[in-house]
Amino acid sequence: MSIEPKRLVESVLRGDRLCLARLLTLIENEEEEGLQALQQLYPSSGKAHLIGITGAPGTGKSTLVNRLTEYLRNPTERHEDIDPAEADSVAIVAVDPSSPFSGGAILGDRIRMRDLSGDKGVFIRSMASRGAVGGLARATASVVEALDAAGYSKILIETVGAGQAEVEIAKTAQTTVVITAPGLGDEVQAIKAGILEIADILVVNKCDLPGADNTKRVLHSALTLGYPQHTTKEGNAQSVWVPPILSTIATTGEGIPELASALDEHREYLEVSNEGKRQAREQMRSRMDQLLRDHLIKEFTAQNPDGQYEELLEKVLARKLEPRQAVEILVRGNPE
Amino acid sequence: MSIEPKRLVESVLRGDRLCLARLLTLIENEEEEGLQALQQLYPSSGKAHLIGITGAPGTGKSTLVNRLTEYLRNPTERHEDIDPAEADSVAIVAVDPSSPFSGGAILGDRIRMRDLSGDKGVFIRSMASRGAVGGLARATASVVEALDAAGYSKILIETVGAGQAEVEIAKTAQTTVVITAPGLGDEVQAIKAGILEIADILVVNKCDLPGADNTKRVLHSALTLGYPQHTTKEGNAQSVWVPPILSTIATTGEGIPELASALDEHREYLEVSNEGKRQAREQMRSRMDQLLRDHLIKEFTAQNPDGQYEELLEKVLARKLEPRQAVEILVRGNPE
Repeated sequence: MSIEPKRLVESVLRGDRLCLARLLTLIENEEEEGLQALQQLYPSSGKAHLIGITGAPGTGKSTLVNRLTEYLRNPTERHEDIDPAEADSVAIVAVDPSSPFSGGAILGDRIRMRDLSGDKGVFIRSMASRGAVGGLARATASVVEALDAAGYSKILIETVGAGQAEVEIAKTAQTTVVITAPGLGDEVQAIKAGILEIADILVVNKCDLPGADNTKRVLHSALTLGYPQHTTKEGNAQSVWVPPILSTIATTGEGIPELASALDEHREYLEVSNEGKRQAREQMRSRMDQLLRDHLIKEFTAQNPDGQYEELLEKVLARKLEPRQAVEILVRGNPE
Repeated sequence: MSIEPKRLVESVLRGDRLCLARLLTLIENEEEEGLQALQQLYPSSGKAHLIGITGAPGTGKSTLVNRLTEYLRNPTERHEDIDPAEADSVAIVAVDPSSPFSGGAILGDRIRMRDLSGDKGVFIRSMASRGAVGGLARATASVVEALDAAGYSKILIETVGAGQAEVEIAKTAQTTVVITAPGLGDEVQAIKAGILEIADILVVNKCDLPGADNTKRVLHSALTLGYPQHTTKEGNAQSVWVPPILSTIATTGEGIPELASALDEHREYLEVSNEGKRQAREQMRSRMDQLLRDHLIKEFTAQNPDGQYEELLEKVLARKLEPRQAVEILVRGNPE
């Protein structure tokens, strides 16, 4: 069962899908072999366009991701003069921050498989929550890194829901697409959850349903609120990205070509402006901070006897010590 | 403007609402005076019933919280033989994990004030996000601690949304109420977001709307899935709490007395079974862990020159080092 990291890396770089799947599992489980392989793969990463796609359940997000994937894989439909061999290869990472309780990740994966199976240029990976959001976001970042190194040119990171988990996971993406749909109360929800701020592209899916115009209007007002500089100043339009509001019907494919174009435009904007570099630096800083935190707590736990912690916890529970005081004693009491 | 922690504590314990508000601001801003005052107040805490109330926007959560508060404040309606002076005093902590972008917290606060103003037995506090979820959850825990010490017997911690932020904040509560409503797609969302697992009491609000029966059915199936031991075994019913599914119409007050009773029953369950102690210990452990993490990173940052971190970050961005490798070098390079 075990495999040398070096051989694993070679197989992944050669395009072996089975080895890639195995590597992702090793990374998700934080196995030493997986982390070593990831270090060897890391120099090959950094080429893919990382696209986050999020929205509440019921917005038709999965159908839209499938349609977009089909479109990206079928370049003759996209530009008549593109060689089919030059089509984007697409990796889909479906992240479900809900617990195994719902079985959502597995179900989604099966539906996915039926639609896109047989295409060797598409790789699908589902990830379910394993407790803390932070852990999932970090695992997602590593999985995306491996897929990037494996040569997929577009990586679609799909997250369910509209909460803080999505905001955390969005930190991995270069371009974030937020999907809403009429009649779900999602326009309110999108605004409430602060998810609008992470959107580079807004999509109103199911735009043939009644209420679509209203949803677009609400999104437009919210955007005007969030980008006042755009509505008051002129002339610097090229230096500020104002999220476009696109309309799609994922079931028929309407609006998908426009979405693909908007993705390309946003990527170009990131490259031409300084924004891409700034974003990459900020994202990596946040990731290193998280890894550093993990490391420090692990080290501290290893160096300190459990007994003192438990003793202090009892005192806190007995209301003899305030939690912050207890932590100060714990840290000061460290013999090092 | 400044005030001694000792005087602040005395005023808060005497019931001075203005001083309490000031203390909460000091705590939220992590001012030294606030944290000192909190340490002095801590022995007086631990008496209140901490109740988390969460649900997606549009479920009528705020109206329900207001109604419940009115009901708790009006014991003659509740039990005819209760002395009005013995009524619960209620503190409402409305936590909005969305950013200041939406202005949700402030708006909600104003609507609140109009309904419940004039009642000295009610204290309302809104808290908006300040970046990380973790920070907000920690600030909420401290604010709740202060309100508990100040003598409020019921503390309602209301959170907007259905994401991980709510799950984090729910860790502060002893009893968690999850609110849904028909026709919002919320039954799906509640299940997807893993929020059902944190529910001690489920409320279908707006139960006069079409689709209410379906919402209840979906919740019931999900519960059956989550509590199989209850459906297969008999006789140990008193040792396992199975969340009741209640129906309410917050606008008319229907079902509110039943909700208040369910809250009391859950609290009694926590006290009679060992669950209350187990929960308190687990919650405090998680809180101390978070405080410890914060402390360790602060200490590390203070001891290490910024230069090395930035140098390593550049190497990671140039794909010369994998992020985990960089963090390992950073920690090993520590001269201590």
